Amino acid sequence: MEEEILTRIEKLSGEIDFLYVDEHIKIAYGYDATGLRGLCGGVAFPGDLGQLVQVVKECSDRGIPVFMRGAGTGFSGGAIPLGGGLVLSTERLNRILHFDAEAEEVQVECGVVNQELQDFLEPLGYFYPPDPASLKSSTLGGNISENAGGPRAYKYGVSRRYVRSLTWITSSGHLMRTPPIGPASLLIGAEGTLGIIYALRLAVLPLTKAHSTSFLEVRGAAKAVAFASYLFSRGLAPSVMEFIDGRTMRCVGEYKRLEGLDDDSSYLFVEIDGSVSEVEAQRRLLESLCLENDIQMRIAYSEDEREYLWELRRAVSPSLARRGVTKVNEDVSLPVGRLEDAVSFIQAAVSELSLDCYIFGHCGDGNLHVNIMTDRRRTEEMERVAIFVERLFTRVVRLGGTLSGEHGIGMTKSRYLSYRFSPAELGLQGRVRAALDGDGLLNPGKYFIRG
Amino acid sequence: MEEEILTRIEKLSGEIDFLYVDEHIKIAYGYDATGLRGLCGGVAFPGDLGQLVQVVKECSDRGIPVFMRGAGTGFSGGAIPLGGGLVLSTERLNRILHFDAEAEEVQVECGVVNQELQDFLEPLGYFYPPDPASLKSSTLGGNISENAGGPRAYKYGVSRRYVRSLTWITSSGHLMRTPPIGPASLLIGAEGTLGIIYALRLAVLPLTKAHSTSFLEVRGAAKAVAFASYLFSRGLAPSVMEFIDGRTMRCVGEYKRLEGLDDDSSYLFVEIDGSVSEVEAQRRLLESLCLENDIQMRIAYSEDEREYLWELRRAVSPSLARRGVTKVNEDVSLPVGRLEDAVSFIQAAVSELSLDCYIFGHCGDGNLHVNIMTDRRRTEEMERVAIFVERLFTRVVRLGGTLSGEHGIGMTKSRYLSYRFSPAELGLQGRVRAALDGDGLLNPGKYFIRG
Repeated sequence: MEEEILTRIEKLSGEIDFLYVDEHIKIAYGYDATGLRGLCGGVAFPGDLGQLVQVVKECSDRGIPVFMRGAGTGFSGGAIPLGGGLVLSTERLNRILHFDAEAEEVQVECGVVNQELQDFLEPLGYFYPPDPASLKSSTLGGNISENAGGPRAYKYGVSRRYVRSLTWITSSGHLMRTPPIGPASLLIGAEGTLGIIYALRLAVLPLTKAHSTSFLEVRGAAKAVAFASYLFSRGLAPSVMEFIDGRTMRCVGEYKRLEGLDDDSSYLFVEIDGSVSEVEAQRRLLESLCLENDIQMRIAYSEDEREYLWELRRAVSPSLARRGVTKVNEDVSLPVGRLEDAVSFIQAAVSELSLDCYIFGHCGDGNLHVNIMTDRRRTEEMERVAIFVERLFTRVVRLGGTLSGEHGIGMTKSRYLSYRFSPAELGLQGRVRAALDGDGLLNPGKYFIRG
Repeated sequence: MEEEILTRIEKLSGEIDFLYVDEHIKIAYGYDATGLRGLCGGVAFPGDLGQLVQVVKECSDRGIPVFMRGAGTGFSGGAIPLGGGLVLSTERLNRILHFDAEAEEVQVECGVVNQELQDFLEPLGYFYPPDPASLKSSTLGGNISENAGGPRAYKYGVSRRYVRSLTWITSSGHLMRTPPIGPASLLIGAEGTLGIIYALRLAVLPLTKAHSTSFLEVRGAAKAVAFASYLFSRGLAPSVMEFIDGRTMRCVGEYKRLEGLDDDSSYLFVEIDGSVSEVEAQRRLLESLCLENDIQMRIAYSEDEREYLWELRRAVSPSLARRGVTKVNEDVSLPVGRLEDAVSFIQAAVSELSLDCYIFGHCGDGNLHVNIMTDRRRTEEMERVAIFVERLFTRVVRLGGTLSGEHGIGMTKSRYLSYRFSPAELGLQGRVRAALDGDGLLNPGKYFIRG
């Protein structure tokens, strides 16, 4: 079958001049940020809606599987082509189509990079709230397909809240323009399995007038997330509430050459935004709650200091990347009140299994990023990692959580779906998927389940 | 076929002791708030999950269509049984199952009345934001099935935002417990066509500490909604922003015996809530914007005055009800920036067609309630009403709006669906519906499309 599909794509490349089958391109687009590799039969780079419809229709007619790809920054293999299928790259679909100040919305093609949209909006006095860590390279189409969140998600919510309408193409090539209701709502977070998103109408918000940024130091990782939960319960409504455990912070410290860090301290990175008076009131509340509970708080008193604190937060991923050969990166999501239990459990489990673990996360929406640094070549250690991941997922589901906050199920988590969904639920999901993609040509081999 | 179904229900009533086929019960449950009547073959009153599963399974096995019914307050005929099918009343599924202060959530059976939940939560210091006008009688299961909003929707959003998980039953009787993601998310707003909701885990919010309530008087209905839109653009974020046109207000005036009202004035009913300092800042902003624009503002300076203003707002529906024999009540929804255009259009159209029209609505989420007072028995006038409704829907869709904000499609609006959705979109919706309800036993003859 693989051979057959490769031949079909080869043939199609003779008819479509934006479809490439060069060996080096097929290799490059066989990977994504997971480091896993699939078999790619060719890559199409449609430059407008007409070309996109054309290539989708041709693939439908010829039975060629289609794998949508934004920037390939995903952490679950959602963009990896399998079985020699065609990668549909959105790189050239990168136009900001329309901005409507009165309606506070912007219309973009799916391949626009998140940061490019922010750069476009800022001088106009607006911003787009979802801010995944990958925002400098990941695309809005990819963000919506994973329903990405980010540090600001506590106050502002995740991608779904901002999608006002979708222009998309069914697997058989029909053009649809709909608000995200009924079947179209399923496309958000569907990882490219249910339809091809071409353009998005997104709500944007006026830039906030003021902000106050601070770092809190709490003894003990579980205590730190418990303190975040306590702050919420006492009426603090920050735009950002990021948790960084002591081991992760020490990595950042080594990377940024900081002194005086130790494993026992964990950190909360807090930003408040709003009107001048709101920020003032919230900052005073935070100060008094920290004082009452004997928590050390460092406030940024200048824009430079604020930038410095953000630099520390942003250094988390690059400093971890230097740490080991293979990063197993799970992004479970839990009710905020269960974070303390989850962090204690994770610490006990990695200690028992002698694994090298770094935890950080977005406390506001209960999203924990659990990173095990290991080496794919060490078979015995990888087995312990697998045991840990199984235990983690079992516990998270028992605590009312989900397998993924924003990275998706893709390839790497599909075998854990049964931890979370009953056979009846999985059967229903399969029937709905078949209703949208009867021939099974959209991202086959990957599985969607998230919202 | 009808006869056959009536016989099957008759037979089933011999086996299920909470299923009634008495003539007077079948007549009572053949109606809903639209005043339309369908043919009801029997009414089941399950009292717990076991009984609910039992009756759904039996209906599935015997091919009996099932019509879920909360309080029957819907305005589009969603709860009306057709073809002699079985009404599944949720009246006895009315328990508040669990309250979790830490997680800020409550678990309820579908038949709990919205107001009962509010009464339960208030002494605990919480509230459930969605507040449809029917809240004193409508049920939470019905609210979620219509994705109801209400006056508070601008600041707090509509029902969907508060659903954390659903316990529901497929048409074939399988029990599902899922967060509202993937297929389960489709049940919200599906008007009972995709699955049977048994229980809901709903997010609740701490009661706000302060509020400020006021009535603004604006010359001209279109100017009033334009002023609401202007207030939003200048940073006002009220919890309530209700529009009431002059003719509707005069009805309220007659009902409540008020003086000095005239048709040319329209009204905005504004409530701000939050912390004391937030409310103070927002109230000052509202005052200065009203002053700048020469808009008369009446503030409630005491709890009694606030209650009086709310009484005026709540009197809108009852005062209209006294007005005519038949109320044709459309609840279109538009982008806030398009409300002015829509109101001008409606005023011109009703004047041209000599119809008696009253408009009010929730400006925050662009939901306009357009009421034509008429008499079903006056055939010629009803034809003009039909022309008006067609023109209204055509214009609303052109302005980027939808046919229903919260009343649903049900029976009364299904023939207008093609105004809004293409054949490909309707086909897709049909396939998804078939994937969830293969035998077509859930609320047949009604159509879901909204979110």
